[in-house]
Amino acid sequence: MNHRLRLLLLLFPICLGFVQVNLAQTIESKTVQERLSYTASARLLVIHADDLGMNHSVNRATFEALEKGWITSASILVPCPWFPEVARWAKQHPNADLGIHLALTSEWTDLRWGPVSGVGRVPSLVDTHGYFPLDTPDVTQRAKMPDVEYELHSQIDRAKNAGIPVTHLDMHMAGMVSSGELFGVYRKLRDEYKLPILLEPSGTHGSPAGSSVTAEEATVQRVVTMEPGVAPNSKDWLDWYKKQLAPLPPGVYQLIVHLAYDDEEMRGATWDHPDWGAAWRQRDLNMVKSAEFRQFLKEQGFVLVTWKDLAKARQQ
Amino acid sequence: MNHRLRLLLLLFPICLGFVQVNLAQTIESKTVQERLSYTASARLLVIHADDLGMNHSVNRATFEALEKGWITSASILVPCPWFPEVARWAKQHPNADLGIHLALTSEWTDLRWGPVSGVGRVPSLVDTHGYFPLDTPDVTQRAKMPDVEYELHSQIDRAKNAGIPVTHLDMHMAGMVSSGELFGVYRKLRDEYKLPILLEPSGTHGSPAGSSVTAEEATVQRVVTMEPGVAPNSKDWLDWYKKQLAPLPPGVYQLIVHLAYDDEEMRGATWDHPDWGAAWRQRDLNMVKSAEFRQFLKEQGFVLVTWKDLAKARQQ
Repeated sequence: MNHRLRLLLLLFPICLGFVQVNLAQTIESKTVQERLSYTASARLLVIHADDLGMNHSVNRATFEALEKGWITSASILVPCPWFPEVARWAKQHPNADLGIHLALTSEWTDLRWGPVSGVGRVPSLVDTHGYFPLDTPDVTQRAKMPDVEYELHSQIDRAKNAGIPVTHLDMHMAGMVSSGELFGVYRKLRDEYKLPILLEPSGTHGSPAGSSVTAEEATVQRVVTMEPGVAPNSKDWLDWYKKQLAPLPPGVYQLIVHLAYDDEEMRGATWDHPDWGAAWRQRDLNMVKSAEFRQFLKEQGFVLVTWKDLAKARQQ
Repeated sequence: MNHRLRLLLLLFPICLGFVQVNLAQTIESKTVQERLSYTASARLLVIHADDLGMNHSVNRATFEALEKGWITSASILVPCPWFPEVARWAKQHPNADLGIHLALTSEWTDLRWGPVSGVGRVPSLVDTHGYFPLDTPDVTQRAKMPDVEYELHSQIDRAKNAGIPVTHLDMHMAGMVSSGELFGVYRKLRDEYKLPILLEPSGTHGSPAGSSVTAEEATVQRVVTMEPGVAPNSKDWLDWYKKQLAPLPPGVYQLIVHLAYDDEEMRGATWDHPDWGAAWRQRDLNMVKSAEFRQFLKEQGFVLVTWKDLAKARQQ
């Protein structure tokens, strides 16, 4: 063996290592869009309905929107009475992209729910009537983390036991980013269940004060979701969504909508709370199903994706 | 003091005792009708709606029927999601006659409920999904009496804590008379809360095999309630009720109806179970509100009473 050959054999593993390292760097530096075989300039959009399972009106609207492709994903309020209808539908639609809408609040006054794991088991999570509190600040103040962990495990496990192939975790009323402790549980559940969590670098679904989210940890660049204040006519409603979405730069986004029919059941549930109420949800439903909105998405070149897609991109 | 006077003084307490005993016998032998100042030949009728709180459709129909006087009483499914709406309505209607529909079953498949006291606290009362079982035989076979007692105390206490002036106890799907042990708990709750329980000498709401109900213990002579098999047109439906009620002899009776609207919510809840389903409950609602049925009750001379009335009669 001459010196040249020896040198080559000696260098070969080093060269191989160099190639591997470079490849890893290339993968790491690839955007989510690229990892899913889109161009780096693509804008990926999850169109996501919250609160599935809350009641029959929400279920009917959300099932239809998923079936027709008006939305790409939804997440489930497991403690709610109509969860079994979701489980049955999920069996008939095994490819549906369904996450768990981790819940520690019960915000309506006439239709309420409480912990899956029972009042006595998680006493720091319930009010004097045995339900989850009405709003997130009550959770932040009173919830003890062992109770939170136990209850949220119960919610995820109930969905998995019902045969639902859970694709992601997110949160009802931004509960999991309302304190550093709750955010810690949110991250822990992500790691334990190996499921992506909805997390933006900052904003309503970003980290709480005192914590921070790295670019790598954030699963979306921004969450777009309607807040109170927009005029309730269909033109202003649709225009608001267009104005939020149109200027977004390349990246991954989640549009959150709240779907239901403006029917007796929904009006009964939300009678004293027009924000996110029956008429609001009907407007969101009208918006996602409208030809105009679907044409807008097309013209803007948004690529509609699911949480299953996003999880795949992160595993690469 | 002469002998006559001595004899009189000696006999006086004996005579007084005799009068007292006779009075007691008279009160005891008085019928409930008489104790409520009706003639012994009167026929008292509680017109009672079950399942209040189950959902918004049931609540809407039952509230209207109570407000309009089409029915005189109703009982509440405390573990159900719309219980808070009942509590709010009860505050606005403090004279409404409302009992607890003691529940150990959850019979629908898409809308389900479980124990108020939590899955972990009463494990013998839940199925593998954490809900009450679908039917009463599952309760009879699996329920442990300490769990039953704990859960039913929780249901009654939750209603009382919500400010509902509870007038009586009855049972969902005849659960409390499905075994001697469960019947024992039913009687115990009656004595502890000093509330009348629905109990007929025999029949669906009578004692289970091996137990017996004394004439004094029965709170109604008979329960009249629709069972499957009657043609679903409004004429046959109404005729069935008339045929049951017309021949009743003097006494105290309960007519049980199941009220709701045949709407999306109710059709969703009962989609795979037409018996006691959405259309059934709409027919019952149409029946109690119909001028023809109300005229029939008048012509027949039925005296409409509440459980508050029956409790009063038993205290005399």
